[in-house]
Amino acid sequence: MMRAYCRYHWIPTLAAINFRSDNESPAAPEMIEALVRANESYEFAYGDDGYSAALTKKFSDLFETDLVVFPLATGTAANSIALAQMCPPYGSIYCHAHSHINTDECGAPEFYSAGGKLVAMQGEHGKLDAADLSNLLSKTGELGDHEVLPSAVSISQATESGTVYTPAEVASLKTAALTRELPLHMDGARFANAVQTLGCSPSEITWKSGVDVLSFGATKNGGVMAEAIIVFNQDYAIQLGRRRKRAGHLLSKMRFVSAQLARYIEDGLWLDLAKKANDAAQRVSDGIKNLDGLTLEHPVQANEVFVRIPDAIADGLYKAGFEFHRWPGTTDLYRLVMSHCTTTDEVDAFLQKAGDLCE
Amino acid sequence: MMRAYCRYHWIPTLAAINFRSDNESPAAPEMIEALVRANESYEFAYGDDGYSAALTKKFSDLFETDLVVFPLATGTAANSIALAQMCPPYGSIYCHAHSHINTDECGAPEFYSAGGKLVAMQGEHGKLDAADLSNLLSKTGELGDHEVLPSAVSISQATESGTVYTPAEVASLKTAALTRELPLHMDGARFANAVQTLGCSPSEITWKSGVDVLSFGATKNGGVMAEAIIVFNQDYAIQLGRRRKRAGHLLSKMRFVSAQLARYIEDGLWLDLAKKANDAAQRVSDGIKNLDGLTLEHPVQANEVFVRIPDAIADGLYKAGFEFHRWPGTTDLYRLVMSHCTTTDEVDAFLQKAGDLCE
Amino acid sequence: MMRAYCRYHWIPTLAAINFRSDNESPAAPEMIEALVRANESYEFAYGDDGYSAALTKKFSDLFETDLVVFPLATGTAANSIALAQMCPPYGSIYCHAHSHINTDECGAPEFYSAGGKLVAMQGEHGKLDAADLSNLLSKTGELGDHEVLPSAVSISQATESGTVYTPAEVASLKTAALTRELPLHMDGARFANAVQTLGCSPSEITWKSGVDVLSFGATKNGGVMAEAIIVFNQDYAIQLGRRRKRAGHLLSKMRFVSAQLARYIEDGLWLDLAKKANDAAQRVSDGIKNLDGLTLEHPVQANEVFVRIPDAIADGLYKAGFEFHRWPGTTDLYRLVMSHCTTTDEVDAFLQKAGDLCE
Amino acid sequence: MMRAYCRYHWIPTLAAINFRSDNESPAAPEMIEALVRANESYEFAYGDDGYSAALTKKFSDLFETDLVVFPLATGTAANSIALAQMCPPYGSIYCHAHSHINTDECGAPEFYSAGGKLVAMQGEHGKLDAADLSNLLSKTGELGDHEVLPSAVSISQATESGTVYTPAEVASLKTAALTRELPLHMDGARFANAVQTLGCSPSEITWKSGVDVLSFGATKNGGVMAEAIIVFNQDYAIQLGRRRKRAGHLLSKMRFVSAQLARYIEDGLWLDLAKKANDAAQRVSDGIKNLDGLTLEHPVQANEVFVRIPDAIADGLYKAGFEFHRWPGTTDLYRLVMSHCTTTDEVDAFLQKAGDLCE
Repeated sequence: MMRAYCRYHWIPTLAAINFRSDNESPAAPEMIEALVRANESYEFAYGDDGYSAALTKKFSDLFETDLVVFPLATGTAANSIALAQMCPPYGSIYCHAHSHINTDECGAPEFYSAGGKLVAMQGEHGKLDAADLSNLLSKTGELGDHEVLPSAVSISQATESGTVYTPAEVASLKTAALTRELPLHMDGARFANAVQTLGCSPSEITWKSGVDVLSFGATKNGGVMAEAIIVFNQDYAIQLGRRRKRAGHLLSKMRFVSAQLARYIEDGLWLDLAKKANDAAQRVSDGIKNLDGLTLEHPVQANEVFVRIPDAIADGLYKAGFEFHRWPGTTDLYRLVMSHCTTTDEVDAFLQKAGDLCE
Repeated sequence: MMRAYCRYHWIPTLAAINFRSDNESPAAPEMIEALVRANESYEFAYGDDGYSAALTKKFSDLFETDLVVFPLATGTAANSIALAQMCPPYGSIYCHAHSHINTDECGAPEFYSAGGKLVAMQGEHGKLDAADLSNLLSKTGELGDHEVLPSAVSISQATESGTVYTPAEVASLKTAALTRELPLHMDGARFANAVQTLGCSPSEITWKSGVDVLSFGATKNGGVMAEAIIVFNQDYAIQLGRRRKRAGHLLSKMRFVSAQLARYIEDGLWLDLAKKANDAAQRVSDGIKNLDGLTLEHPVQANEVFVRIPDAIADGLYKAGFEFHRWPGTTDLYRLVMSHCTTTDEVDAFLQKAGDLCE
Repeated sequence: MMRAYCRYHWIPTLAAINFRSDNESPAAPEMIEALVRANESYEFAYGDDGYSAALTKKFSDLFETDLVVFPLATGTAANSIALAQMCPPYGSIYCHAHSHINTDECGAPEFYSAGGKLVAMQGEHGKLDAADLSNLLSKTGELGDHEVLPSAVSISQATESGTVYTPAEVASLKTAALTRELPLHMDGARFANAVQTLGCSPSEITWKSGVDVLSFGATKNGGVMAEAIIVFNQDYAIQLGRRRKRAGHLLSKMRFVSAQLARYIEDGLWLDLAKKANDAAQRVSDGIKNLDGLTLEHPVQANEVFVRIPDAIADGLYKAGFEFHRWPGTTDLYRLVMSHCTTTDEVDAFLQKAGDLCE
Repeated sequence: MMRAYCRYHWIPTLAAINFRSDNESPAAPEMIEALVRANESYEFAYGDDGYSAALTKKFSDLFETDLVVFPLATGTAANSIALAQMCPPYGSIYCHAHSHINTDECGAPEFYSAGGKLVAMQGEHGKLDAADLSNLLSKTGELGDHEVLPSAVSISQATESGTVYTPAEVASLKTAALTRELPLHMDGARFANAVQTLGCSPSEITWKSGVDVLSFGATKNGGVMAEAIIVFNQDYAIQLGRRRKRAGHLLSKMRFVSAQLARYIEDGLWLDLAKKANDAAQRVSDGIKNLDGLTLEHPVQANEVFVRIPDAIADGLYKAGFEFHRWPGTTDLYRLVMSHCTTTDEVDAFLQKAGDLCE
């Protein structure tokens, strides 16, 4: 099983095939090269370097609008700082019960907002429903100062269930949000995967559909560590720099993140990388549909596959060296994540083995 | 003026010679290589990778004691998370008025501790004095619940004035701190420079002198972004991981930081890099002592030189392409920072020019 | 309709009969007298007065154990400070979805805990179920540092639905809580009403059943403003005084609260007052059971009656001068609250009118 | 020594004469009566009562401007909530080193502002100097996002040294504050004492001199517990109600505070009470000036006297039953506080004894 992936890296030392997380795969060689190249000069520190300065123009071009970019190293920081700009300490953030901000960030949004409250909503396949949101918001306000102030709506694109909102769906959510004048935040840890699936422009699925601030992730899709807060609505950029600094997220050698981000969106690299991951996931999905024992839990619309697998088959796959997560709080739901490194051979080997075990 | 520094990097494009900040210089090639090598495999995410796992042993060996290492990307985060482990929301932290935590972190310690208070002390050449601390602490407590609870002492090693505490001085401060049972934190953003100057073991200047937690910095001394919280006193390691996560400082691809840290302390690289910077600073210091117009503000004990420069001379140096900071809040005090990249030629060119201007 | 309640107060100026909230009724004359008497001397400020000092003994006697009392002015403060002692910033508090801390305190527990997270659970008639809690807790921990740390369980006694936990039920919840070593907090804003219904000792329903800290309320049951945090488990008393002070809840003239609290638990006043309110609620409940149009939503076990009332009947009652709340977020659920001031005549007038309207 | 002060209260049980704190004296009978009278009716809870509603008009009349009043129970809460409206989490508040917010509130302003930083300034006799403020502010900004954002100036009126700002002095401070567009907060725990001394209108010393928000205290000057935030600049009233609620400072039976406040400013009661205290302090001050052994530390401009007393004399006074505070952190500085209860006999007895001891 050869994974002749990259120039610098990835010598297959394990029989294992890793579908555990896109965070576990190597970075793309282009991203490594960009980082290395950024070391070729003295540069101003703390984001005053040339790489960081150039991002505004590059991202404004990509998103076809004037925007502000704040690079940083993690998605949790991007989400939490963005949301703290929207949600006062006495406010609340509407989000999906399974959203990363609600379940996987150890209370980071509460920390950054100084005590804001997440209102966790249900919603099919990891997606918020505009009617539900509208309905829930309509019931707020009766308690006056006794209740927290609805302050923001946050959605993930792609979602934690591997699904994708269409521009129309995002716009509907924004319409619902506007009944209480709430801004819309998008957690785009897997934004590239979503855009690649949608085939739309980045602008269409963000500010044109009502997104005010985007957490733009590159780490999962080939970066070393490279994320950014993209602020479309300048109201939410005010003093964001100070929030970033006081959180310890203003990197002294910011150039190394900014250089990655610049490369990531150059020549469509970000979508090329996402396509590899998405195609692999689609191939897994298609294959699973033909298997009797395995059941897809959600439509596969990005690079994640959620699938119900009977114990015996899961065991068999593990033993054969396939690595993937059982979903927390469940007994038979598993997540397989494809990355830009995933090969067709790897997918086919998995499907072959799963097929054997299903017989 | 050639700076033929490194393999991958640094093609001299400017006439300028940069003494502005060690954060502005390129990373050391060894550190870049370590980062690149860490890309050669799939690795568990969020610090469960092999590089991160190995750090405990490596750092325990270096510091000759059992300790816990929490890698992260910035020194501000290291300081603030460490201090939040020591200082409850109703507590206070004793530090120098010019300390980084007090003046340069936009309130990060207050943020992380949920409202702790910094007690800013004066002290010659950026250093806290044990008798002053003792005296100040002896006056606390009279107001009972009305006053904040003295909770920690934080010192910088090397200090923000480029000076260094001896083990005896650190021990005295700890003795003073213990009159109120306070733990001692050390901000080691330039820890390597201090240890190189002292010529002592890392253990001697830390836990053996009473340091409970160390912010261990590698970024300024050749890293890409690589810092760590080193916890000697296990009481302060409890749930530190959750504090790091909720702050967005648990890097998904932690391996890239951990691999740097591992390389940094391998074969004495960290001290070799620091020696280059320190030697350059010493050479600048020695040269300035021979000049009539310039006056050293503090003894030069690490890689920073603080010097009073008359306006005309400062202008002349700027025009000649030398870059350095005027110190905030002053009119004629300047800081020159040397890094592992600084060459003897650069230093001599500066001294030559300064000498010319002084005549 | 005469309400010749008290010496100092209550001259009936309205035709209205107020079942809106026990917070709207006058204080009991005994409580007013106690407050006035506390004005007869100079007293040390900030809780060092004689009234406050005496509370430890008085409450320890009442609860048959050594405990610590922290008087203050509001129940929200009592709840939030108590919970902040239990829940670190990265922690979570398990509570009922309809609990006061979750819905009515504008995020106070999140504020005081510096970003803790409330985990809102469902449960019949406003009560948490031990099996549900056990089950939910058993699912935590899989995500390590990525998830908040389960840190406390909080229940209300009486609940926000007017029901009461038995000692056995509380003990079961504590057993469930202990599977994760969690402390148990009880919001006793209507603690007197619960104890009066149960007919048990205060100790039996609190620390003997596993309660670590109690928010002890007197305001709703006849106080002017008089609440206290009662700490049974001394671990949670540590530095609580500083938390109270930094929140602005250390009253300079604390005597006026402490004097009320002392009087409240003297000679069984607290239970006598509660009995009046409970008996009235029971009488309403009994009467409603005989009416065809009205449906009780929850068993009436304290001083609150939750009842479904058709629009026409609700309108008729309003027009006849009866005042009560429609429950937020509902269209036909109403809450009637009885207080120590409620008279049998008032209840009977209501039942009479409701009966007329139902015909 | 008779202190036949009030109808309800104060039966002299001690030989002691208490100059320790105005918080230790009984409340004025008018205030007690107002509180008792507020118990004569059912009233809406949580500040929707008639007493609270009437405050806007009453205070707007008193201050000759439209304003918003938020009653609450403590001055620490008033200060901290007011400042949190001005100071974002990454901001700073300029205040005197000896100000109550800096030394006596256990970090409450830091808590409420979610980590704001107090910049403690020196200044003669407890007063900030406009030139100092101007100078200090002019030095901010050089560090960009690395430093906290200057966000508010807070002064105490009367100060913690018993001195009083003139309208001109307040206006100068506001002019200095405006160089950075900072709002001005006034801690008026002893506002009545200051106004009585100045003989000016309340408007003149507040909004007409540039005060945006005032912490209006009544507790020290005869209240039971009665404070209010008075917002002159409506920008700082936005969502203040929610901040108050989430802090547990929205009293359920708010009427009892509001009724006091209403009475306090009726018929000049507040100034009458303050005059008694101020006159007594002036009498003490005048007397001390004639004594050789005692030295006034600050001009006496309100109801507090700060005086250096040699050990032997202080002991003699204590033994004779006079009660007063040694100032924390000093060995021979003492504070004597007069209240509306202080009698001329008490003052004269003190002066007599002090005179005897000085001989």
